[in-house]
Amino acid sequence: MHLIPVGLGDAPVDRWLPPDVRALAARLDTYIAENAKTARAFLKAVGAIHPLQDITIHTLTDKTDAAQIQGWLRPLKQGGEIGLVSEAGCPAVADPGARVADIAHGMGLAVRPWVGPSSILLALMASGLDGQRFAFHGYAPVEPSERARQLRAWEQQSGRGNQTQMLIETPYRNAAMFASLVATLRGDTRLCVARSLTTADEWIRTRTIADWKTGPAPDLDKKPTLFLYLAR
Amino acid sequence: MHLIPVGLGDAPVDRWLPPDVRALAARLDTYIAENAKTARAFLKAVGAIHPLQDITIHTLTDKTDAAQIQGWLRPLKQGGEIGLVSEAGCPAVADPGARVADIAHGMGLAVRPWVGPSSILLALMASGLDGQRFAFHGYAPVEPSERARQLRAWEQQSGRGNQTQMLIETPYRNAAMFASLVATLRGDTRLCVARSLTTADEWIRTRTIADWKTGPAPDLDKKPTLFLYLAR
Repeated sequence: MHLIPVGLGDAPVDRWLPPDVRALAARLDTYIAENAKTARAFLKAVGAIHPLQDITIHTLTDKTDAAQIQGWLRPLKQGGEIGLVSEAGCPAVADPGARVADIAHGMGLAVRPWVGPSSILLALMASGLDGQRFAFHGYAPVEPSERARQLRAWEQQSGRGNQTQMLIETPYRNAAMFASLVATLRGDTRLCVARSLTTADEWIRTRTIADWKTGPAPDLDKKPTLFLYLAR
Repeated sequence: MHLIPVGLGDAPVDRWLPPDVRALAARLDTYIAENAKTARAFLKAVGAIHPLQDITIHTLTDKTDAAQIQGWLRPLKQGGEIGLVSEAGCPAVADPGARVADIAHGMGLAVRPWVGPSSILLALMASGLDGQRFAFHGYAPVEPSERARQLRAWEQQSGRGNQTQMLIETPYRNAAMFASLVATLRGDTRLCVARSLTTADEWIRTRTIADWKTGPAPDLDKKPTLFLYLAR
């Protein structure tokens, strides 16, 4: 089973996919995808050699049961190949794909990860925050007091262990998340905002909370954004 | 400033670097590198357009002081460009490069991360362990009782928060680390061993500790390896 990353936005494929990975993605005729529509857009971008209507795309959701996934993977026992793709970025990271890799290991199948874009990793590289120790938490709680409590708990952990904390938010709630972070964290904590990575709209800044407070808030509305912070 | 990933082993460059990143890396004439020798090998691999002896390589260590890094970055204020590379994988992740990105942010310079291989991310994708929440810890303590205590503390955290724990070891100590993990963690904890990623020697398996105990230990001697685990 091949784990194949897809683009993060509308950037040209030569910016984010190595040639061998592109060639592999272009020749496979069976995929497991989080979203069939974005999978077809990816197949067009890489120049699939089979007509799109001849490519099988199994759609994976949180609800897909294990027996069905095993059925999709069974042909691999006889030397078949299948690609696993996410809606954006690296499959099995911050998406339901990890279950497919887990089931493949259980069936004794080879699992091959390929190089491509991950917004989590690109944000970490560019943040200037500690890259020796970091944690990705996914989403913070939505309820305001619970959210503040969790952001502070991660801040304490960060200060104790020198651990960069990373989180994401539903894009239409990014402005609210930025406001929560600035209102909740300590003045000398450094916060990185990494927006629209790999696209023409890419924007990455790291400042202390005190500095963020003095400037205008960045425009994050409906734009995929990573938030990273490190306490002193 | 451009953050440019380098290969993890002897795999051909087309397997791990997008064409636009390769072209960028080939045309820059100034680099900051963790290791000048591996940086030159990278420049050869990407087909640098300048003769290698005409490319400036500043060597970065844990001891390089901030004023020196500021000096290296100063030409960027007048529109210059510089590449930051690690010994292997993504710069500023599990290496001293994060300080350079941090100083660049402080100087108001644009920091641009580029797509390429990260053994941490490739291992996470392929592990089948939870990719929604994960933490990279770097090295575990060397002293045996302290190591066991830390591995168990991470295991508890993993069970509570469904967080995949990731660590590395000095390659000649990999066999000892594997033995510690198998001896210390609970039987139903899943452990992934991801060796020599992207190379011909790549080998990735996820099993429960109980299952690892019944089979032979993998050959990890002097081979770069990631260890990942997730408690039930």
